[in-house]
Order: sequence, then C-alpha cells, then structure tokens
Amino acid sequence: MYKERVKRVCAKMKERGLSQLLVTDPVSIFYLTGIKVHPGERFWALLLGAEEEELLFANRLFALSGQTVETVLYSDSEDIRSVVPPHIKSDMVGADKNMAARFLLPIMESCRESSFVLGSDCVDEVRAVKDEMEKERLRISSRINDECMEKLAAFMHEGVTERECGEYLKGLYAAQGCEGLSFDPGIAFGKNAGDPHHKPDDTVLKEGDCIVIDIGCIKDDYCSDMTRTFFWKKADPEYVRIYNIVREANEKAEALVKEGVPICDIDAAAREHIASFGYGEYFTHRLGHFIGLEDHEKGDVSSVNTDPAVRDMVFSIEPGVYLQGRFGVRIEDLVIVTEEGCEILNHVDKELCILGV
Amino acid sequence: MYKERVKRVCAKMKERGLSQLLVTDPVSIFYLTGIKVHPGERFWALLLGAEEEELLFANRLFALSGQTVETVLYSDSEDIRSVVPPHIKSDMVGADKNMAARFLLPIMESCRESSFVLGSDCVDEVRAVKDEMEKERLRISSRINDECMEKLAAFMHEGVTERECGEYLKGLYAAQGCEGLSFDPGIAFGKNAGDPHHKPDDTVLKEGDCIVIDIGCIKDDYCSDMTRTFFWKKADPEYVRIYNIVREANEKAEALVKEGVPICDIDAAAREHIASFGYGEYFTHRLGHFIGLEDHEKGDVSSVNTDPAVRDMVFSIEPGVYLQGRFGVRIEDLVIVTEEGCEILNHVDKELCILGV
Repeated sequence: MYKERVKRVCAKMKERGLSQLLVTDPVSIFYLTGIKVHPGERFWALLLGAEEEELLFANRLFALSGQTVETVLYSDSEDIRSVVPPHIKSDMVGADKNMAARFLLPIMESCRESSFVLGSDCVDEVRAVKDEMEKERLRISSRINDECMEKLAAFMHEGVTERECGEYLKGLYAAQGCEGLSFDPGIAFGKNAGDPHHKPDDTVLKEGDCIVIDIGCIKDDYCSDMTRTFFWKKADPEYVRIYNIVREANEKAEALVKEGVPICDIDAAAREHIASFGYGEYFTHRLGHFIGLEDHEKGDVSSVNTDPAVRDMVFSIEPGVYLQGRFGVRIEDLVIVTEEGCEILNHVDKELCILGV
Repeated sequence: MYKERVKRVCAKMKERGLSQLLVTDPVSIFYLTGIKVHPGERFWALLLGAEEEELLFANRLFALSGQTVETVLYSDSEDIRSVVPPHIKSDMVGADKNMAARFLLPIMESCRESSFVLGSDCVDEVRAVKDEMEKERLRISSRINDECMEKLAAFMHEGVTERECGEYLKGLYAAQGCEGLSFDPGIAFGKNAGDPHHKPDDTVLKEGDCIVIDIGCIKDDYCSDMTRTFFWKKADPEYVRIYNIVREANEKAEALVKEGVPICDIDAAAREHIASFGYGEYFTHRLGHFIGLEDHEKGDVSSVNTDPAVRDMVFSIEPGVYLQGRFGVRIEDLVIVTEEGCEILNHVDKELCILGV
C-alpha cells in the first residue's frame, strides 16, 4: 500500500521535473510510510527520489521501531547542514509547503548547486484521491458521526447549554472507540448560529432557537465532518424558508458531483441557488474542503478551483446562510466522487426537523 | 514602548549586517506592534528596516483596527510574489525561523538579488530581556499561579482523580480573570510522576502517593509556570531523601543566578548536586526554559547555553528526578535575573509537605 502511494507521488515528481522531494509534513510522512512521529521542534523528513528511493531523517530521541525505511539518525547536538545536504543530489528539489525556514535556509545554503521549489503538491494531489482502505475508514468514521449526531439531537432539552452538549458529544465519540475529535465541535443555539465560527459557550437552549451542530471524529486515523441544523419546539416561518433554501443548495450541489465535473461548478450550483432567493451575500464561505487523515486537507470546493473532480476524491458540501445576530443554517455532508455521481457518507435526515415536540 | 522594542531589534540587525528583517511569528509581531492577529494559513508579517522603518503585510480579511503602522493590505486572490518582493530592497534579509516555505520560496524566487538568512534571533534576543511592564505582568501571573497552587493542594482528597484536579484548576484560573492556561496542566499521582510528560487521567489519589503539579496560567498576555511535589498522607523515606536532593538542587541553582553568570553553570549546579547522590541519570531534561508571552520562548537553561545571564531575563529553574514506573519529583520556580542575584517569582513553600494529615 505504501509502495503504491510512493509510486504515485514519484510519478507527479517526474511530471514536474523534480528528482528529489523533501516531505516534512508528519501526516504526509505517515501517509507514505505508516510511521507516526510527533517531531515537535525537531527535524523529521522523508527524502524521496523520483525513482522511488526513500530516506528518512529522524532524531535519535524519536521512538522509532520496526520501520523498514532506510533512516539517517541524528542527535540534538548535530547541525542540520551536516545531516541532510550530503543526501541532496539533484538540480531541482521539492520542499514541503510548511517546511520551516530554520531547516530550509541552512539546507539551501549548503546546497548551492540545487534549486529549491515548492513540491508538496506532489503528495497532496495523491492524498486527495483516496484508496480503498481510506474510503472504507472514511465511511466508518462518518457512520459513527451519523450515530453521534442522532444521539446528540435526542439529548437536546430545555436549559441545556452548548458547552454541555459538547461534553456529551465527547463521551459519545469515546464510547465508539474514536481517537478524538477531528475539530472543536461547533454547537450554536439561536443567534449564535449567525456566526459560522461560534464556539460552544454557556448559552442555554430556548424555544424557537435554531440549533447548528457541526461535528466530526477521528476513527482509525480518518476524519468525519458533518453539519445539521435543527429547531427547538418551534420555527419562525422565515427561518423555515431559509432552511429549505440551504437544504436544496446542498442537494443541488451533491446531485452535480461526478467524475470530470469542474469543482468550481459544484460551488456555483449551491451559490446560485442561494443567491436566486436573495441570500447570496449571507453565504460567506467556500462550499467545501477536502478531508481524510486531516479534517482540512489541501484542495477546496470553491469558485477558484477549476480542476475537474477525480474519482475517489472526498470532500464536504456545506452551504450556509448566516444572518448575523439573528440566526443561521448550515447543512453539510461528506461525499466520495464516483464515475456516475457520488457516494454520500452521511445519512442523518435533512428534512426540516423540529426537536422537543 | 513598542518603538523602544523595535529600536533594540534594529540594533541587533545592524550587528548582524541585516538591513531588513521579515518577522512572521504572530507573537513577535504582537510584541513589536501591539497588534494581535491569528493569521491561520494566511500571510501576516512585519518587515523591519534597520533604520526602524516598519511595514505590515495583512490580509484584508484580518480585522485590523486603529493600528498606526503602515500596512500593505492584500486579498486572497493575490500572489505573494506581487505583495512582498516590491518592498524587499536589501542585500541581506533576515527571515523568521518558523516562516513557512510556501511564503519564503516564492519571495526568494522573486528577489534573486537578495540573500535570505535566519534572522529571528534579533527579535528573540530582545524578547528574552524583559522591560518593566513585562516583569510586572510576569510577577502578577506568577502570584496568581502561587494562589492557585495552594488552593489546588488544599483541594486534594482521597479518591480524587488527576483529571478532576485539572478541571478544578481551570475554574480557579478563570475566577482570577486569566485568559487561559499557559500549557496543559501536568498533574501526576504516584507512579505516574515517574513520567515527566504524564497527562492527567483517571488515576485516583491514594495513601503514600507523591503528587507532582506542574501548572501555569496566562494573565494579561504573560505566562506563569511552576511545579511543586507533595505527598499524600505519608512518604516513603527514600522518596523523602530524593525530594530533599531535588529541593537543594533547585535552591543551589537559584542561588547561583546573577547577571553575568554563564547559563550553563546554573544548569551544572543543579545537575552536579543531583549526580553527587547518584541520581544524575534520572534528571533527564534541561534545567529550564525562557518564558514571557509564551510558555517556552527561545533560550534554554542547559549545558549547551554558554551565554551569560543578562539582567531582566526570565526563565525557569526546574530540576527533577524520575524513577520510571515508581515515582518522581520536580520543583520549579520562575526567576528574573538581577544585578545582585535573582528575584524568585514563586513563593509556595518548598519544604517537604505531606498533605491530608
């Protein structure tokens, strides 16, 4: 599996004329080798050669064990200029987009014959297209998320606070054997929902509130991410109208997803639907983001991404309308792109649901 | 105040032959301008000229207000190569140690006449020496930490878990008006204390346990950080012996702190004391770290730091002995270096204390 991934990355390197690539993103290294390290401030890298040569650089303090990739071990007292440059042998070296200057500049200084360019797209583009194992884990992570969303909706009661709901949710995920949350949960009651970045506080649930729940877990390294909007006891007719517009936008976008469709068109389908009812200016963010080992991976579903959707890409479809200080709605699913359309990973009902009645 | 800080940084730049410095660490920018931004993935930088010219680069989405520093605003659709390079006018440009390759490489590519070198030491060395306002805020933060340590010690009771202590502590800090914790609290009972990186779990306090508490808060932007080790109900004589060795190591090191003393000598004083009783191999980390706006700032108190202590530097003195799987002791204070010695910021008694009796 790892060999196959490395092979796909090396093909991208050749397309770009890179004969070596320095991967420093710990998640990408895990993706390509199965080795998980939290390097903190220390240097941790996988140097790939375009002919599928692999070389790891690891601090002696990292507790590596049983790995089979050739490894250069270094100590805290060693200068990075004596560790990495002896292995840089190409004219054109790709560097990771997040590689820190404290590593990059000394290495460049010692390798004046080589040009360094951004190269992590070679890995990110491969990571964007999921293999069978990854798709299966993403399905399982989203299945757990579906269950927890339903339990959390059933938990809602008069007087509960957003924060209490967040704590309850953590218990639900833990009981399902999740490693953790894929992001801090978004739970917003009433006017808090008008802020798409609201974080749970001590706001109490009351009659007429909308309830926006944006949650996800990590199960076997893979992330889920879903949003549903409910109402408590009753719903204002204007809010019901907006709810249905957002739901239709979500469904229109999902109906369009298919191998080969320009990703910006998917964004446009949702955006135009919302705009046609006069709420365009209240849909203030991109339609979606890629997801996998991380909640937000490279790639977005927005007007600027003109690339075609590729089979086995996985991303979110999450239109929203936010009336600041009043109310908000967001409805989000994860989808896997297929030849004929898409597989929707979330199954919690999207019909308007008034809880507590 | 900010002008004075910029002036000190510019003096360091001149010493190093840097005519421009690109500061991208958001904490350093806050330190130099008073402007706090959480840039996320977006570019946020302060370009300093050695003659104290200041220029900020800010995304239009950042909610800047009322700031007086000249600012270049850019949009998400703009390429960084058209934003920053027109303002790079020097042969030798300093870059921030953590600046990401996705910004650094495109800028370097567009500024082929300039050399880029690591330059953030110019800021970090200035940040290491605190001004009057900073010292006062560090005193206040540590005073709160002292109070909360005493309350947490008084809260200990048979059957309490480490995690419950952590939650209780958060409430104490919140009640004192703190912005938050300067790091996840370390609370370890019994054999958990043998792991210096143990995180609070559901371990229950029981008779004979040692209790290692390593905690800190953020108050008015400044961090505190202190460790005390207590015992519950009774203490094994070997543990008492080790406790006193660690306490003496802490006191010997603190007695040595003074303007002009090589920092490595302070580390050595504590380390040699512990080693003289045969526990040298169980003191597995550096003696201390610098602190201020961040819990861990550039600079450490270790055998490799041969620089002299400078008046108004603030760092921790935290010797420890860890018997894995059995027991551990750490005793930590923050100190401000003075002309005559040091000002110790923590005042919780270090004499052996058996709680619950």
